[in-house]
Amino acid sequence: MLSMQPIGYVRSPYRNTQEIPKGLGAKHEAEGSLEIRSELEPGLTDIEGFSHLFVIWAFDRSEGCKLVGTPPTDDRPHGVFATRSPRRPNPIGLTVVELLCREGPVLRVRGIDMLEGTPILDIKPYLSNVPRERLRRGWLAEAEARNGERP
Amino acid sequence: MLSMQPIGYVRSPYRNTQEIPKGLGAKHEAEGSLEIRSELEPGLTDIEGFSHLFVIWAFDRSEGCKLVGTPPTDDRPHGVFATRSPRRPNPIGLTVVELLCREGPVLRVRGIDMLEGTPILDIKPYLSNVPRERLRRGWLAEAEARNGERP
Repeated sequence: MLSMQPIGYVRSPYRNTQEIPKGLGAKHEAEGSLEIRSELEPGLTDIEGFSHLFVIWAFDRSEGCKLVGTPPTDDRPHGVFATRSPRRPNPIGLTVVELLCREGPVLRVRGIDMLEGTPILDIKPYLSNVPRERLRRGWLAEAEARNGERP
Repeated sequence: MLSMQPIGYVRSPYRNTQEIPKGLGAKHEAEGSLEIRSELEPGLTDIEGFSHLFVIWAFDRSEGCKLVGTPPTDDRPHGVFATRSPRRPNPIGLTVVELLCREGPVLRVRGIDMLEGTPILDIKPYLSNVPRERLRRGWLAEAEARNGERP
């Protein structure tokens, strides 16, 4: 058993999950902020140099766990570890955001898909991409193909 | 306060942190396994279609938190949220691995940089890259430039 405390909270335009774009081709262009606890501000030193960050956060309003479910991007069920479903064994979310600027302990970012007030557990620099020619996207690519979408 | 339980454990060739490649240009090509708890196996349904996975795990052998420190990839100090340091406010690790194959509840993967027995908290599909032309890598790119390394 591991216990964690929020390092800060998300300021988001989304107040409920229905407002968050979902499904194939959904764009996450929303801007918002990551408000880090002021005593942790030294931990943000030099973060401005990175264009993109991993944000690890908690699904604090999801309930229970569903091992197999149908995501909004498909009409077929998949395992929870093959999706971004909120109903996970550990309610951890992961989002890549673009860092726009920093104001003290507050990071202004683009690409928010979390709800207002979401607890942040960690932030890490996004360092490198997977080589494009080696990336396969499983059921998501198949669902896009069936719908005539391009990745 | 959030409480989490491991969904499984890493089988790694590394028994202590000194064995893990670190520093500029370090390659993470080690193969190992993600052994998921058997009762969670349905959650892996369709994961085979993805070439790469995010593994979220716990630094269960790191001690304490250091908000500013010098990483093995540089000779200058940086904030913990701008590095992959294990000494984080919440001891969460994040690794992108290549999925080689699945045998029931066991995922054979390449790119392990965790120690043997590391608790796994979550697994998610790696869905897309950040556009290369928009990726900036801050102090890491500067340290590479000083050392004549290429990304």
